Amino acid sequence: MTGKKNIAIMGAGLVGSLLSLYLAKRGYKVDLYERRPDMRTTVIDGGRSINLALSDRGWRALRGIGIEEQVREVAIPMHGRMMHDEQGNLSFLPYGKEGQSIYSVSRGGLNKALMNISEPNPDIDYHFNRQAIDVDIRENKIQLRNTETGELERIIPDLLFGADGAFSAVRGAMQKTERYNYQQDYLEYGYKELTIPATEDGGWALEKNALHIWPRGNYMMIALPNLDGSFTCTLFFPYEGERSFAAIKSETDLHTFFQEAFPDALALMPDLAEEYFGNPVGALVTVKCFPWSFEGKSLLIGDASHAVVPFYGQGMNAGFEDITVLDKMLDSMGDANWEALFKAFERRRKPDADAIADLAVLNFFEMRDKVADPRFLLRKKIETKISAQYPEKWIPLYSMVTFSDLPYSYALDAGRQQDKIMKKVMKHIRSIEDYEKPEVQKLLQKQLVEKEKLKSYKAQEV
Amino acid sequence: MTGKKNIAIMGAGLVGSLLSLYLAKRGYKVDLYERRPDMRTTVIDGGRSINLALSDRGWRALRGIGIEEQVREVAIPMHGRMMHDEQGNLSFLPYGKEGQSIYSVSRGGLNKALMNISEPNPDIDYHFNRQAIDVDIRENKIQLRNTETGELERIIPDLLFGADGAFSAVRGAMQKTERYNYQQDYLEYGYKELTIPATEDGGWALEKNALHIWPRGNYMMIALPNLDGSFTCTLFFPYEGERSFAAIKSETDLHTFFQEAFPDALALMPDLAEEYFGNPVGALVTVKCFPWSFEGKSLLIGDASHAVVPFYGQGMNAGFEDITVLDKMLDSMGDANWEALFKAFERRRKPDADAIADLAVLNFFEMRDKVADPRFLLRKKIETKISAQYPEKWIPLYSMVTFSDLPYSYALDAGRQQDKIMKKVMKHIRSIEDYEKPEVQKLLQKQLVEKEKLKSYKAQEV
Repeated sequence: MTGKKNIAIMGAGLVGSLLSLYLAKRGYKVDLYERRPDMRTTVIDGGRSINLALSDRGWRALRGIGIEEQVREVAIPMHGRMMHDEQGNLSFLPYGKEGQSIYSVSRGGLNKALMNISEPNPDIDYHFNRQAIDVDIRENKIQLRNTETGELERIIPDLLFGADGAFSAVRGAMQKTERYNYQQDYLEYGYKELTIPATEDGGWALEKNALHIWPRGNYMMIALPNLDGSFTCTLFFPYEGERSFAAIKSETDLHTFFQEAFPDALALMPDLAEEYFGNPVGALVTVKCFPWSFEGKSLLIGDASHAVVPFYGQGMNAGFEDITVLDKMLDSMGDANWEALFKAFERRRKPDADAIADLAVLNFFEMRDKVADPRFLLRKKIETKISAQYPEKWIPLYSMVTFSDLPYSYALDAGRQQDKIMKKVMKHIRSIEDYEKPEVQKLLQKQLVEKEKLKSYKAQEV
Repeated sequence: MTGKKNIAIMGAGLVGSLLSLYLAKRGYKVDLYERRPDMRTTVIDGGRSINLALSDRGWRALRGIGIEEQVREVAIPMHGRMMHDEQGNLSFLPYGKEGQSIYSVSRGGLNKALMNISEPNPDIDYHFNRQAIDVDIRENKIQLRNTETGELERIIPDLLFGADGAFSAVRGAMQKTERYNYQQDYLEYGYKELTIPATEDGGWALEKNALHIWPRGNYMMIALPNLDGSFTCTLFFPYEGERSFAAIKSETDLHTFFQEAFPDALALMPDLAEEYFGNPVGALVTVKCFPWSFEGKSLLIGDASHAVVPFYGQGMNAGFEDITVLDKMLDSMGDANWEALFKAFERRRKPDADAIADLAVLNFFEMRDKVADPRFLLRKKIETKISAQYPEKWIPLYSMVTFSDLPYSYALDAGRQQDKIMKKVMKHIRSIEDYEKPEVQKLLQKQLVEKEKLKSYKAQEV
């Protein structure tokens, strides 16, 4: 036996489960502790998990441990956004180039798959119904309560990973250390999960291979396809105000509102009232904190260190990318000095976590109101043309985030620069044909030369 | 008796004490609860209070309750910054126009003065040695522990003001409510208080009417005059690194460092080693949160709702301005609906609190490194010329913050706009004489026309 560390992971969600595979592969003994019961044998109360959009960063982490193909089987490709206007008219906007898609997966389905893949590994043990009731961050002593039996248990792992989500208990303990930087920001919007069931013949009632959006100015609904023919819809809605969760008090209010705002969806939602009044309103929080580690003994990962709002579809992808980055650092730095490793990791990863958090909030405003604006759609089309003409020099922001492994912080910076250029270009654009006008082409060439200065930055790829 | 509310103020610091006067004047019964003993009869452990710079916003609040003159007696005007370079050479930069000064006051001295002014009021009662150990924010029930006797006491005021500072217990209770927005950010710098004592004949060893700065790139020291001839010095220094608190371990380290960095000050600090190793290192935190009130029952005020770093000298001034704004709102809205009043207050005041927090961090960088840069000093002189030529159109940022009652958020925006203009102007400036060049004058005129667009904004003055 070598002196391999015993590792505890708090939280057996998506990031914790995937992390266990990466760590076990390196020969560590890994124990996962999960507050909830085993979701494979118990029905977890639903209505609080937005469907997930798996994209390149997520796939990369799955590929890195050789389980990409197993997950592909439960994923539905979405090639673009399908916008629904108030009259039920549809318009389609591809996400990227031909062949680039994001993938709809159910959080529960993916989590179960990861558990089924990892649990047979003799070095990985899952412990369910274990709530961390006290975390002594200095000594790495964690007191756990068995939520079924009430029994208390104390563990003292060599290393502790906090993969326990936005309300992380491990982070809670770190927050009590000196000079801890911490931030939690709630949107004044909540979300509610609803369903468009499968058609009678088991098919999809809307276009299957798209992410559907009903953008309505200061609120919106989205729908993602499931394998069983249903769509999981999520209504993002203000807590307070004229049109808000607070304003809808009765089935009549609900029906009137949906009839006006989402008439085509309403026709497909037979259980709307039951679901609406039965499901909870979820909160939308951004959490930023620093540092993520404590003395080489513990490290936060995924939502625990950087919870983001869901509007870029990057929460899980960012958490999975944490694992890719950590794994590459283990390759290059080795595991002789965990403190140095954790510090290097958090320093490296923090700017990218901050960037995707900010991008996610910005994308909320884009999805909510701009997506319905013809000027915005024209701009997207012009940008596609620029990107086609100058593929080396111009990757649209959405593509950098979704279809590349460029650091999120690079994407945010480059995106801002491109935004400035687009503002200048769009002054000359009334229709898509204007793109060919000499003054547009000349302006673009000049701007792209200046943009090149940023290029060197690209060196710091993941 | 009318149905006047009983008010409890947690914290008898500067803001709590001044607030009590404003509230008692309106006929409320006010009780102040302070964790520490009465500083007028007990020596509080020193070494943790940066001297304060009282400026226009602070004076206005003191004037509003008729105690300006009493405070003037304990305040020393500082007309500008006196910079000390490594060789001990001095250069002076006025803060504003002729006659505009900020005022050095000792935190303890001012606090005692406010207590002495307010305590004789029969409607104001001070309760010292009372620690809030539990705040039930929903019921406004506060459990207090008498730190001398250990006795517990429960109060249920009609209204609760949290004037209990950056680590507010009242805010701690609000933070536990749903969807509470909260942020704490520490600089990687701490501060240590030191002293330049009075000369043997009781005079000031440095120019009395100035704020002294020793800017040294990534650290600095400042000194403010006291009435007794001494100066309170504050060393702002990184926690870690080559030159840092961590790196100074012995008297030799300390002496070598001061000899190199602050030789002229060292010669005036006979008790340096004793003070340095005896005084604690203070942390520099920014706290932002929202909302500041709970259901018309409680309101945070001053540092409790917006703790800022000390580099703009505005912490106390901003807290005092909270009181001015609240008092004006009480004038216009009356006190029939405290919930509406508190909500209007926090909505109004939050952008200004955020702005001064950001300005304070930015000013750290300016004081720390730019102040020693000849280009920066030239720029300041050019700005003074612009302001003299266009007094209606250009108030320097420092003056807007320090010598006006323009909202901080306006100052931040206008300051950014002026910064952009200055960057353009400075491209044409090699010496102060260049200001008269026709291209500079023309550029300036053009830029100022565009700047005018912001003017309307000025309407929302405090």
